[in-house]
Amino acid sequence: MTVYRVVQFGLGPIGQEIARLAARRESYELVGAVDIDPGKVGRDIGEVIGLDRALGVTVRSDAERVLAETKPDCVLHCTGSYLHQVWPQLELIIRSGCNVVSTCEELSFPAAQHPDLAQELDRLAREHAVTVLGTGVNPGYVMDALPLFFSGIAQSVTAVRVQRVQNASTRRRPLQAKIGSGKTVEEFRELVAAGTVRHVGLQESVYLIAAGLGWELDDYRESTEPVIAERRITTQYFTVEPGYVCGVEQLGRGYVGGEEKITLHLRMYLDADPAYDKILLEGPTPLELVIPGGLQGDRATTAIALNAVPRVVEHAPGLVTMKDLPIVTARA
Amino acid sequence: MTVYRVVQFGLGPIGQEIARLAARRESYELVGAVDIDPGKVGRDIGEVIGLDRALGVTVRSDAERVLAETKPDCVLHCTGSYLHQVWPQLELIIRSGCNVVSTCEELSFPAAQHPDLAQELDRLAREHAVTVLGTGVNPGYVMDALPLFFSGIAQSVTAVRVQRVQNASTRRRPLQAKIGSGKTVEEFRELVAAGTVRHVGLQESVYLIAAGLGWELDDYRESTEPVIAERRITTQYFTVEPGYVCGVEQLGRGYVGGEEKITLHLRMYLDADPAYDKILLEGPTPLELVIPGGLQGDRATTAIALNAVPRVVEHAPGLVTMKDLPIVTARA
Repeated sequence: MTVYRVVQFGLGPIGQEIARLAARRESYELVGAVDIDPGKVGRDIGEVIGLDRALGVTVRSDAERVLAETKPDCVLHCTGSYLHQVWPQLELIIRSGCNVVSTCEELSFPAAQHPDLAQELDRLAREHAVTVLGTGVNPGYVMDALPLFFSGIAQSVTAVRVQRVQNASTRRRPLQAKIGSGKTVEEFRELVAAGTVRHVGLQESVYLIAAGLGWELDDYRESTEPVIAERRITTQYFTVEPGYVCGVEQLGRGYVGGEEKITLHLRMYLDADPAYDKILLEGPTPLELVIPGGLQGDRATTAIALNAVPRVVEHAPGLVTMKDLPIVTARA
Repeated sequence: MTVYRVVQFGLGPIGQEIARLAARRESYELVGAVDIDPGKVGRDIGEVIGLDRALGVTVRSDAERVLAETKPDCVLHCTGSYLHQVWPQLELIIRSGCNVVSTCEELSFPAAQHPDLAQELDRLAREHAVTVLGTGVNPGYVMDALPLFFSGIAQSVTAVRVQRVQNASTRRRPLQAKIGSGKTVEEFRELVAAGTVRHVGLQESVYLIAAGLGWELDDYRESTEPVIAERRITTQYFTVEPGYVCGVEQLGRGYVGGEEKITLHLRMYLDADPAYDKILLEGPTPLELVIPGGLQGDRATTAIALNAVPRVVEHAPGLVTMKDLPIVTARA
């Protein structure tokens, strides 16, 4: 069995979960860990991620030296959602000659908002003979790669509609806070204006779908609205009275020739029931696919990121997106 | 837009449907058609496939000359389910230097039953610098590639169970006959013994899943049983009295370390309601995916075969299976 030597870059909740998953798998060896949090630096990563054993790998903040010393097959990068924000890190990883799988949302289809950066990333990756992928459950899978994969058995697709309803009550506290739980509508609008409520990645998903289907988008529009509690909702972390915000509803729409051909509708709110993911491919023979209960975000994101490593390592150098890789599967 | 020049090899119901789809698509040009049926040879393919216009392509039986004269980007091959039976045709196509997408069921994962032939096919394909793929809705998609693609967001998969329930009442007459409609149980058993009832491809799907998940199968078992009508069933073609056969139920089981890790359960019978395709990935976090109504076999098979052409043309030479290709999408 091939064993992939990986470095975990970023030890927030998602990075920690990927590290735990890698530690459990036979085909991965965690050879390095990078974070800048003084509470984590210098400690064994096994301890940081809550294992009952040390892994013999110390969390360090000097990324460049960690990569030079460990020469991993792939870096798992989880530090931020925006490409500008993570650019220096990506550049460092690529210049160190390492393949990278990142959960940076904008990296799932960077050409959507940053065509110049996407081109520069591709050039840089080829120059250093490495492969760069952004992935996760959303963007990266359930609202883009899965609809594309589903379209493979369609004779004709005239429009793509995806609905994702997530029950935030079962998620961690920061996520419940992030969706505006307990806020007034006015407070919610301020959070939206400040950019803190928004789920990042709908635009990338719309562009990824369009690219996969060979559609030329002439417009993209996005809106973010509050979901209002109709009754009192109590979770482990929040109590929301009726009339207050219990979550967020976000719409991403892609237009081709003036028609709304792609609609991604994401609702994430407390006590959402039923939760589900649903894909509808419109056409002469409409096709529907449902994931009852919906994919649990953190678990699915960490899984697809780690599962993508072998495909990224095998792939020719350059910037790739999920539509370019052979089927990513769960392997031990 | 890239236009793919294709030859349709075999003009049974599936081959005709692929040709109709190719004729409708902008990105395909039908440059040749091969069949041995004297009722089709010499006629314009547009007429043979029921279009109201001629396509300027005559159906011919001399395959070798058709391929030499047209030099297509890819051949769409639809003549039989068994590898031994179609081997001379595949050899001819490969030696003519043509890529091929075939709906031959055993070709979807030929190593399952014919490891020697699979190796020889791969060698031959590389020697002639062409790519060879077997695909279809089943085997090729809903009971193998789709479960594999779904596993990409799983942290751990301990078993794969797929259920496919097809309503045969909506299908063509030969299919209703093939599943034993109106037969007694004894007659059905004789048809099973003669090999005429069996759906070909469950074994290939089980092996494809195992290969994609990195599982080593130590046993494969298959069973075929009749579905008995509980009330009178009337379709366009058959009337089945209670107690008589109205369809078939087939189970394919793959064992790893003595455990049944893969179960494919296919039921195809008259008036099946509800029809659906359902994938269950077992593990610490079980994952379920449902296609309500189920995929319509002929439409889906023809779609995935034609949709796969660009991926096959782009791919490095050799024998490939659906797990090796980047996402196959529906394109105009």
